[in-house]
Amino acid sequence: MSAKTSAEVVIDGKVYTLSGYEGEEYLQKVAAYINSKINEFDALDNTRHLPANMKSTLIQLNIADDYFKAKSQVEKLERDLEMKDRELYDLKHDLISNQIKTESADERIKELEAENRELLLNKARLEATLEDALLEGIGSKK
Amino acid sequence: MSAKTSAEVVIDGKVYTLSGYEGEEYLQKVAAYINSKINEFDALDNTRHLPANMKSTLIQLNIADDYFKAKSQVEKLERDLEMKDRELYDLKHDLISNQIKTESADERIKELEAENRELLLNKARLEATLEDALLEGIGSKK
Repeated sequence: MSAKTSAEVVIDGKVYTLSGYEGEEYLQKVAAYINSKINEFDALDNTRHLPANMKSTLIQLNIADDYFKAKSQVEKLERDLEMKDRELYDLKHDLISNQIKTESADERIKELEAENRELLLNKARLEATLEDALLEGIGSKK
Repeated sequence: MSAKTSAEVVIDGKVYTLSGYEGEEYLQKVAAYINSKINEFDALDNTRHLPANMKSTLIQLNIADDYFKAKSQVEKLERDLEMKDRELYDLKHDLISNQIKTESADERIKELEAENRELLLNKARLEATLEDALLEGIGSKK
């Protein structure tokens, strides 16, 4: 869906017309980054007077170094993400196990409460029957 | 703890002595990467015959583009990691809540089982007492 855009950038004092899919802002950002590398080289005594082609190559090396360090970070972050995914997987597993235990316990509680109610009713009936039996016994002794 | 190492690399046919902390292998890898960019440019009709300084700048742009795209990946991966960390935090929270519920349910089960045992003993005693009362009643009727 991206349209190819065109932008004029100035690099090391020369105008270039670049085209790309990322947009003018991006192209200007890249140009500014290269210009800042050139300025760094021009600011230092030990690099300022090097022949142009050598300066150029050293700048390429410098930028490539930034690139490889960023790539290395990408690889580390991808490994970190994998680890977190495994951790998440295990935790979700534990959570499900745990939920099954809780449901099981809740069912057991319901069973016991029902048994309990049954036993209490039973007790009431027995106590009533016992009362009657005792009263009858007293009655027949008179 | 890294020592500074020195390596001779060949870039675009010229020998450079580079020093860095990363080691010879790394420096050779960076040099090879730059040489492959130069070869790409030399292989294409529309770039092969460009003046040297222009070719150089275009290669810098190309490498810088690789760098910015890697940086962009780093930023995305860092956001992804943050999201996973939040997910992990929430899951751990849920797990702990759940464990508290399970412990609570287990305690309730113990209480109910104790009450049930009590009620069963009680029932046995009442039934014994009732039996005696009924037998006595029958006895006194004779």
